[in-house]
Amino acid sequence: MKPINEVVKTKPWLGWILFLGTMALVFFIGLFASSIMERRAEVVFAYKPTVKLMDGEPRNEIWGKNYPREFNSYYKTQDTTFKSLYNSGNKTDMLAQDPKLVILWAGYAFSKEYNQPRGHWWAVEDIRNILRTGAPKDEHEGPQPGTCWTCKSPDVPRMMKKMGIESFYKTKWGALGFEIVNPIGCADCHDPETMNLVITRPALIEAFQRQGKDITKASHHEMRSLVCVQCHVEYYFRGDGKYLTFPWDKGYNIEDIEKYYDEAGFKDWEHPISKAPMLKAQHPEYELFRMGIHFDRGIACADCHMPYMNEGGVKYTNHHIRSPLANISGSCQVCHRQSEEKLKENMYSGQKKCFELREKAEQLIVAAHFEAKAAWDAGAKEDEMKPVLTLIRHAQWRWDFTAAGHGNSFHAPLEVARLLGTAIEKASDARVQLARILANHNVTKPIEIPDISTKEKAQKCIGLDMEKLNSEKKEWLKTVVPKWLENAKLRESKYKI
Amino acid sequence: MKPINEVVKTKPWLGWILFLGTMALVFFIGLFASSIMERRAEVVFAYKPTVKLMDGEPRNEIWGKNYPREFNSYYKTQDTTFKSLYNSGNKTDMLAQDPKLVILWAGYAFSKEYNQPRGHWWAVEDIRNILRTGAPKDEHEGPQPGTCWTCKSPDVPRMMKKMGIESFYKTKWGALGFEIVNPIGCADCHDPETMNLVITRPALIEAFQRQGKDITKASHHEMRSLVCVQCHVEYYFRGDGKYLTFPWDKGYNIEDIEKYYDEAGFKDWEHPISKAPMLKAQHPEYELFRMGIHFDRGIACADCHMPYMNEGGVKYTNHHIRSPLANISGSCQVCHRQSEEKLKENMYSGQKKCFELREKAEQLIVAAHFEAKAAWDAGAKEDEMKPVLTLIRHAQWRWDFTAAGHGNSFHAPLEVARLLGTAIEKASDARVQLARILANHNVTKPIEIPDISTKEKAQKCIGLDMEKLNSEKKEWLKTVVPKWLENAKLRESKYKI
Repeated sequence: MKPINEVVKTKPWLGWILFLGTMALVFFIGLFASSIMERRAEVVFAYKPTVKLMDGEPRNEIWGKNYPREFNSYYKTQDTTFKSLYNSGNKTDMLAQDPKLVILWAGYAFSKEYNQPRGHWWAVEDIRNILRTGAPKDEHEGPQPGTCWTCKSPDVPRMMKKMGIESFYKTKWGALGFEIVNPIGCADCHDPETMNLVITRPALIEAFQRQGKDITKASHHEMRSLVCVQCHVEYYFRGDGKYLTFPWDKGYNIEDIEKYYDEAGFKDWEHPISKAPMLKAQHPEYELFRMGIHFDRGIACADCHMPYMNEGGVKYTNHHIRSPLANISGSCQVCHRQSEEKLKENMYSGQKKCFELREKAEQLIVAAHFEAKAAWDAGAKEDEMKPVLTLIRHAQWRWDFTAAGHGNSFHAPLEVARLLGTAIEKASDARVQLARILANHNVTKPIEIPDISTKEKAQKCIGLDMEKLNSEKKEWLKTVVPKWLENAKLRESKYKI
Repeated sequence: MKPINEVVKTKPWLGWILFLGTMALVFFIGLFASSIMERRAEVVFAYKPTVKLMDGEPRNEIWGKNYPREFNSYYKTQDTTFKSLYNSGNKTDMLAQDPKLVILWAGYAFSKEYNQPRGHWWAVEDIRNILRTGAPKDEHEGPQPGTCWTCKSPDVPRMMKKMGIESFYKTKWGALGFEIVNPIGCADCHDPETMNLVITRPALIEAFQRQGKDITKASHHEMRSLVCVQCHVEYYFRGDGKYLTFPWDKGYNIEDIEKYYDEAGFKDWEHPISKAPMLKAQHPEYELFRMGIHFDRGIACADCHMPYMNEGGVKYTNHHIRSPLANISGSCQVCHRQSEEKLKENMYSGQKKCFELREKAEQLIVAAHFEAKAAWDAGAKEDEMKPVLTLIRHAQWRWDFTAAGHGNSFHAPLEVARLLGTAIEKASDARVQLARILANHNVTKPIEIPDISTKEKAQKCIGLDMEKLNSEKKEWLKTVVPKWLENAKLRESKYKI
C-alpha cells in the first residue's frame, strides 16, 4: 500500500473528500460536546436557590421556587383518580363500602365519617371537611385536641416552636385553625438551609429516646423511611394533655404494643354496645412494614413510594407520593422483572386472601358486641363479663391493626393473616363464653343482629343524628373556615421572602 | 528495531530461549487440550449403558449401574439427620410432639402412629413398620387395601400391569408384600429405554383426562413437577374398590375440593368422639405449591428439591431429594442473593406464624369434638347436631390440608394462614352453636377436655390398646416380613439383566 500523501498526489479529489469529511465529523463532535456541557450545566444550576427560605418556611409554593421538579411532582398528590381493588378513587366512602365499620367504631368519631385517604396535598382540607373534627364554634370547643393537627401540615413545627409542644397538643383543635393552613409538604421532612432530611415531630424523637436510640445518628437511607415514620405509625393521646405518644416501649409487634396499653390501663374509648374498653389502631404502617420482606431486604419507604426520576441531566426524587401500584414501572420493576400485570395480580391475590379473613373477623366482632349487650340486658354481672370484654378488646385491636393501615396486606401479608386469624379466634372465644353467660341468664336463642346493611342504617342503629352533624358541619364550613383562611392569608402576607 | 533473525545472529542465546520457551508453552497447551478432551469424553461416555434395563425394571441398583451419579445421589435419601424448626431428625414422632393429633384423628389409623417422613429410600421399610398398616396374617386380612402401596415402590407399575389397576387397588395390602420390595426410585419416573420422564401412576393421568387435559403433551419442564405430582397430592379411595382418585374435578383450591367431596357425600371416616363425618387431607403439596409465589414464577419441584450438580464435566440432577433448607446454596441461592442464614430466618419466620395459627386451630377443633360428644350425651338430636358436625368436618379439613403436607407453610404461607384462619372461624362457629345446644339441654358449664398432654394419655383417651397393637406388629415383623423378603429375593433372582 502506498502512503496517503502519494495517493492524494495522483487522485486530488480524494484529498477533498478527506478534508470535507473531517470537517463534518468535527462539527458533529462539537454539537455533541455542547449537548453534554449543557446537561451538565442543567445539573449544576438546577438547584441554585432563587429565593432564600426563612427558618421553618411552611409554604410549599415558596420552596417550589427553588426546587421546581420536586414541587411539581409533589403537586401531583392532588390527583385522586387512582383506583385499586378496594379503592374506587376519590375519597371512597369506607363506611358505605363496609357498614360493619360503623358498629365496630360506635362511640368513636370514626363511625361518623371515614374515607379512603387522599394525597398529602389534601391533608388540611380533608381534616377540616371530615365530620370527625366536628364544628367547633370557638377556640375552647372540642371535640378534638390540637394533637389532631400534628401530622397535617408544615405549620405544625412552626407552631410547636412558638407555643411549646405540650401547649400545642393540649389546646383545642379549633384554636389553631387559622395558623395551620399549608398541607403536608417540604418543611415536614427537610431542613430549609441544607435540604437534609430532618425529623420535625417530637413523638418519633421521644419514642427513639425511650428505646435508648438517638435518631440524629440515623443514616440518610434510614431517614428515607424515618421522615415518613413521623406520621405513618400507631400512636395514642397520652393523659389529659393529649400528648402524642408512640407505644413502642416494649417493641413494635402487636403483642408488645397490646401489653404496653394493657399495663397502662389505657383505652381509646368504651364501646357503647358491648361496654368493652376499646383500642383504636391508627394506621400502623411502619410497624407492619417492619414485619414484611421488603423491610427485611433493606428497602426504604421512599424507594417504592418516591422512586428516583430523570429530567434532562437531573436525577431527583419523585414527590408524587402514592401507591406503587400506580407506578409499577418506576417502583416495583426497578427490582422485579415480571410484567406490570403479573405484579399487580400477585399483589391483589394476597390482598384478597387477607380481605376474606378480615371480613370474617368483622362479622364475628360485630356479633360479639351485640351478644355482649344482650348479656348485659339479661342481667350479666361485671365479673362474668370482664374476660369477655377483654377478648373483644383484643380481637378488635388485632383486626383494626390490619384494617387501619394503608397497604398492610401488601407490606406484610402473612403477619396480617396471622393477626386476623387470632382476631377471629379471640372474637369467637368471646362468643362461646357469651353463649354460656346468656344461657346462665336464660337466653339460649341466637342473638339477632339489627339491620346494618347500609351506612345509614348502621349509623341510625348506634344513635348518630347524621342530619344534625352534617348540617352543623356545613354551616361551620361556610362561616368559620373562611375566617380562618382570611386570617391566615393576612398573617402569611407579612412573611418576608 | 532490527528483524529478529538479525538479532539472533549476534545473540545466539536468545534463539535458544525462544526455542525452549515455545516448546514449554506448546507442551502446556497440549496438557490443557487433553484435559478438555477428557472431560468431553466423560460426558460422552458418562451415560453409556453398561447393562440393558428390562421393561419396568424395579430394582434401583440395576439402574444405578448405568447411571451411577444419579443413583449415588438417590442413595443419600437414606440420610435422616436433617433437622429443622419442627423436625428433630430421624422419624420424629409427630403424635408425641403434638398429642392433640391423636384426638383429631381418633378412629382413623393416623392416631396409632405418625412420624416425620423419611427419604424415598425408606418408603417400603417405613410402610411395613408403621402401625397404620397393622399386622395382616394372610392375604385376606386388612386393615389396608392394595391402594396403600401405590406411592411406595417401582414394583407398583409392574404389578399394576400384571394384575390390572382395579385388582391392584382392591386386593388387600398384605397380599402384595412379597411383590413390593424396592423403595421409590428410578422406574417411578423414568422410561428405562429413553430415560425420559414418564407418568407411571394412573390416578394422575385419569385426573388430567377428567379435566380434559392430555398429560402426554406436558413439556419437559412441566414433567419436572408432574412426576412428583403422581404422589405428592391430596387423594382419596373411591368406592368399595378403593380406587385411588385425585379430587380435582372442580379445581385445585380447597373450596373446590371440599365441594367435590361434599357433593359426592364422601367421608374418610366418622369421628368416634363427635360423630362428625370427617375428611383426611393427604399431603396436598402440589395443590398448595400451586398457590405460592414459586409456582407462579414457573419453578418446578425439581428446581429446588433436585437442583443440578456438576461432577467433572458432567452436569446431572441431584436425586438426593430433600428439603431445600438442607441445601440452600444449591437450591435457593441459584436465584436469591441473600445469605443462607437470612433465607433460613425468612423461611422460619413464616413457618412460626403459620404454626401459631395451626396450634390455635387444633385446640379449637379438639374442644369442638369433645363439646359435640357432651351435646350427644346431653340428649342432642341429629337435626340439631347436623350443621355443627358439618362445621367440624370443614374446620378439620382446612386444618389438615395445611398440616398434612410437607413444606406447605413455605410453599404458600398466605394460603396456609387463610385456611387456618377459616378453620379457626368454623371450629369456633361450631363451638358457639354447641354452647347453645348444650344450654338447651341444660348444660351451661364449660365442657372439660380430658388430660391429653402426652401421646400415651391421648391414645388411652380414645381407647387404643397400644400394647396389643405394638406386640402384634412386632410379632408380624418377625414372622411375616422375613418370608416376604425371602420370596422377593427368589423372584428377583430369576430376572435377567
